[in-house]
Amino acid sequence: MKIAIAQLNPTIGDLTANTQAILKVAQDAAQTGTQLLLTPELSLCGYPPRDLLLKPEFIDAMRSKLDELATSFPPSLTALIGFAERNPNAEEKGEKPLYNSVALIKNNHVKQIFHKRLLPTYDVFDEARYFQPGNLPNHFTLDHVQIGVTICEDLWNDEEFWGKRAYDVNPIADLAALNVDFTVNLSASPYTMGKQTVREQMLQHTATRFNQPIIYVNQVGANDDLIFDGGSCVVNKDGTLCDRLPQMQEYSRGVVWDEQTFTAVATPAVRLDESAELYAALVLGVKDYARKCGFKQALLGLSGGIDSAIVAAIAAEALGAENVLGILMPSPYSSDHSITDAVALAANLGIKTQTVPIAPMMQSFDSSLAEMFVGTEFGVAEENLQSRIRGTLLMGIANKFNYLLITTGNKSEMAVGYCTLYGDMNGGLAAIADVPKTKIFALCKWLNRTIEVIPTNIITKPPSAELKPGQVDQDSLPEYEVLDDILERFVQNHESPQQIIAAGHDRPTVEKVLRLIKIAEFKRRQAAPGLKVTDLAFGTGWRMPIAQRWG
Amino acid sequence: MKIAIAQLNPTIGDLTANTQAILKVAQDAAQTGTQLLLTPELSLCGYPPRDLLLKPEFIDAMRSKLDELATSFPPSLTALIGFAERNPNAEEKGEKPLYNSVALIKNNHVKQIFHKRLLPTYDVFDEARYFQPGNLPNHFTLDHVQIGVTICEDLWNDEEFWGKRAYDVNPIADLAALNVDFTVNLSASPYTMGKQTVREQMLQHTATRFNQPIIYVNQVGANDDLIFDGGSCVVNKDGTLCDRLPQMQEYSRGVVWDEQTFTAVATPAVRLDESAELYAALVLGVKDYARKCGFKQALLGLSGGIDSAIVAAIAAEALGAENVLGILMPSPYSSDHSITDAVALAANLGIKTQTVPIAPMMQSFDSSLAEMFVGTEFGVAEENLQSRIRGTLLMGIANKFNYLLITTGNKSEMAVGYCTLYGDMNGGLAAIADVPKTKIFALCKWLNRTIEVIPTNIITKPPSAELKPGQVDQDSLPEYEVLDDILERFVQNHESPQQIIAAGHDRPTVEKVLRLIKIAEFKRRQAAPGLKVTDLAFGTGWRMPIAQRWG
Repeated sequence: MKIAIAQLNPTIGDLTANTQAILKVAQDAAQTGTQLLLTPELSLCGYPPRDLLLKPEFIDAMRSKLDELATSFPPSLTALIGFAERNPNAEEKGEKPLYNSVALIKNNHVKQIFHKRLLPTYDVFDEARYFQPGNLPNHFTLDHVQIGVTICEDLWNDEEFWGKRAYDVNPIADLAALNVDFTVNLSASPYTMGKQTVREQMLQHTATRFNQPIIYVNQVGANDDLIFDGGSCVVNKDGTLCDRLPQMQEYSRGVVWDEQTFTAVATPAVRLDESAELYAALVLGVKDYARKCGFKQALLGLSGGIDSAIVAAIAAEALGAENVLGILMPSPYSSDHSITDAVALAANLGIKTQTVPIAPMMQSFDSSLAEMFVGTEFGVAEENLQSRIRGTLLMGIANKFNYLLITTGNKSEMAVGYCTLYGDMNGGLAAIADVPKTKIFALCKWLNRTIEVIPTNIITKPPSAELKPGQVDQDSLPEYEVLDDILERFVQNHESPQQIIAAGHDRPTVEKVLRLIKIAEFKRRQAAPGLKVTDLAFGTGWRMPIAQRWG
Repeated sequence: MKIAIAQLNPTIGDLTANTQAILKVAQDAAQTGTQLLLTPELSLCGYPPRDLLLKPEFIDAMRSKLDELATSFPPSLTALIGFAERNPNAEEKGEKPLYNSVALIKNNHVKQIFHKRLLPTYDVFDEARYFQPGNLPNHFTLDHVQIGVTICEDLWNDEEFWGKRAYDVNPIADLAALNVDFTVNLSASPYTMGKQTVREQMLQHTATRFNQPIIYVNQVGANDDLIFDGGSCVVNKDGTLCDRLPQMQEYSRGVVWDEQTFTAVATPAVRLDESAELYAALVLGVKDYARKCGFKQALLGLSGGIDSAIVAAIAAEALGAENVLGILMPSPYSSDHSITDAVALAANLGIKTQTVPIAPMMQSFDSSLAEMFVGTEFGVAEENLQSRIRGTLLMGIANKFNYLLITTGNKSEMAVGYCTLYGDMNGGLAAIADVPKTKIFALCKWLNRTIEVIPTNIITKPPSAELKPGQVDQDSLPEYEVLDDILERFVQNHESPQQIIAAGHDRPTVEKVLRLIKIAEFKRRQAAPGLKVTDLAFGTGWRMPIAQRWG
């Protein structure tokens, strides 16, 4: 049996385009004698559709598109298509209004429908907001082969692998007990650093434990803050990895099932190493946000610093250097290297630049506020003014020419509020908001592995906001190695202050950092969507009150 | 039996202060011979604690505080205290990590613990993110009286009242079957316009249907975007309302249980009428956000328009007129009345003002951008520049003097994006972001019912952003009556475009408005928290993708 894995990049809510993309791979697959086509979770509408699911006409349209797709499907091809389905018993039984479903299309009809059983409600996931869990094992027969069907989270409850249960049932155990020949998993699993390794280890563990070959089909492409990384793969029951599709690319190919074993038809794609994977993910994130929102061009402020440098490189890779505009906005406090480094970067990348000195605006604001500010010292208010003048210039240019403004703050500064709301935080997308500063250094070094992309001086000089003479980040913050370790422990790992101190950090530093995190919540609440690359990003998976007094 | 209802206003996460507040009402109650004290849902930590619940040390501290509270409690007093409790079986059974619990304190010990059974996951609620539902009816005995315990949502599943079920079980039905004498409901139910009416109708229906007297104890006070309105009440089994506590105020008082009936010890508080209730809610929202974030003073831009006028009145009421500063920022496009109306308003309210003309900043930005903008027409970019100059001035003043900047946009303009990101949207709290423009007119008229608070010209002149000569809102938008009706149908009621057109709106207007709503999503994502006053506010209960192509 030949099975095609369609690692698709849907646009949320674009039912017509998503259906066409499925039909295209279906036709290609049918021509090469494929019997079964697999698509990702909710492949008709894209994942996550979020509150579009609350619109009844959206649910109706999705069902119509599914029936239309079935009718126009190659008759020889069977397929699994993800869609959100109305739960007809919701109001009578007191259940959730929808199911997260998979339709089995066969002989041009929807023959069976399967319901996702395990619904994640942690981090960025809100599936209990919309969906009723299915309560039966999902499987079907094709050419005398028994095939189990699981949807994403259904496969993520192996208490042996995780050391604990997250749900009371384990769908793969049920399927194994029913002696299905193999199991497919239709997923939309967001990228985080290191996740592909965990996924493959988990799939290999599960295949071995339950003696179950598994085909794992993941969505690819970015939707707002979430990057789906593809990396679909096929594991045999002895745990060997039979095939892997490329990461970060829309891609389809087949695998052959014969005598209880999968055989690849091509060499498995190579796993990207950590920095290559992170860079490719960020490029995909910028590219898809721009494309799916209808932007062809982007701009950003170039400060001569490392954050704007890496974002410029990402944007140039994502959109083409000719579509990226860097704006240099020196102030009287700017160092000479802020200009020369930015210019050198732009030359390396081949992007255009414009320079707009901010002194005239600083002077007009200072004069206008002089009377109110009389007798006060230069301080944070004046530093922020510079940042907001720059943010206003950038938005003016973005508005005038319909460019996407990409904002350049990193996770370390977003955490402690070392950034100006309505200033350098301005932008439609925050490309590196979830990348800690120490990782940004690593990423720049990786990017420079063969030729110098990021000018060396940008990497080696001390980070500075240059909002007052001689300022460097470490005037206000601990060393980034220290800061990032505290952040990882506190934000990602939910360690208590006592645990972080016990791990070797000094108490005053820990207390300062945690206090800064807390009082910066109001800034983060108004931040642009930031591409998620860690297990816990500030954004949809971080739901912290502002007016609170814990800690 | 004398029972005290403590309608408390906790600060999220402030376990010490919240415990002290409970102890204070407990001591007062004990002195007047009260036997049972009732507090709201999660009264120890305040509702909603959101992701503070993911911190293990927070959960541990809450349990310690509960035990400490029990020890220091008046020995004669029994009480129900809300807290989040660790679920010890979570990892073994695959359950959620916590329960939304109520502790029964009696004889200085925690004698029983009850678990919330119905966990809301719609709108602003994410309880499935944290909590395992309880699966048993909750009740206890005090002086031979059988008392049923329900927690907030536990009482909101009456299929007779709602016409449908939202959950498979109905806790009050279980308690009625067990013949409890009466049932208490410990709530944290957020205010929306008209909700108190619905609550009382529902309580009266439920009491009658199940022959169950009910005491409903609601939290009061605002936490970020949510305003809890109190209005705790007592209903006898024939459905008569025996007592009602004041809305929008922290308040405690007793009720007497005797011979199967509750008797009030004071005259029930009068229900506020719609405008009075809305105004009081917004005042509470501003007051508590400022207080709980540590601000004593606030500022806002005064444009001479109706939105900033009503927000200035709310802020003056919330913080005291002497703590509110209005900033007038006229441009060359400003009308004379923009100044005279703002000055008249400030005089009526008794708030201070400062005037900062923005022409110098406009000129410096125009000059600095002239080369890049050469050959383009005056347009949205230039309009936004003015708004961002004003936003930057306001933030400069707020930063300098540690004032809370309150932003003044209304729901109608937030819906269609008739507002400038990083401009007039700037601020820590959006006081009227969920109030449609038509309601703002009504609110101003109500506010002027005895004396003129809002100058009449502010109410009667055509709304205008004054960002270009002669501009009025209706150049770009339908009449507000039309716009607000479309918005209510689309946003609140989830009507389809077809349904809205069928209701009598013309197709081009509907299509335009819905398109504007869709393309303004990126602005709303970065908006300040807005006080929620309708059933569906843009904010935590509105989770719409940005990069999407539906509709």
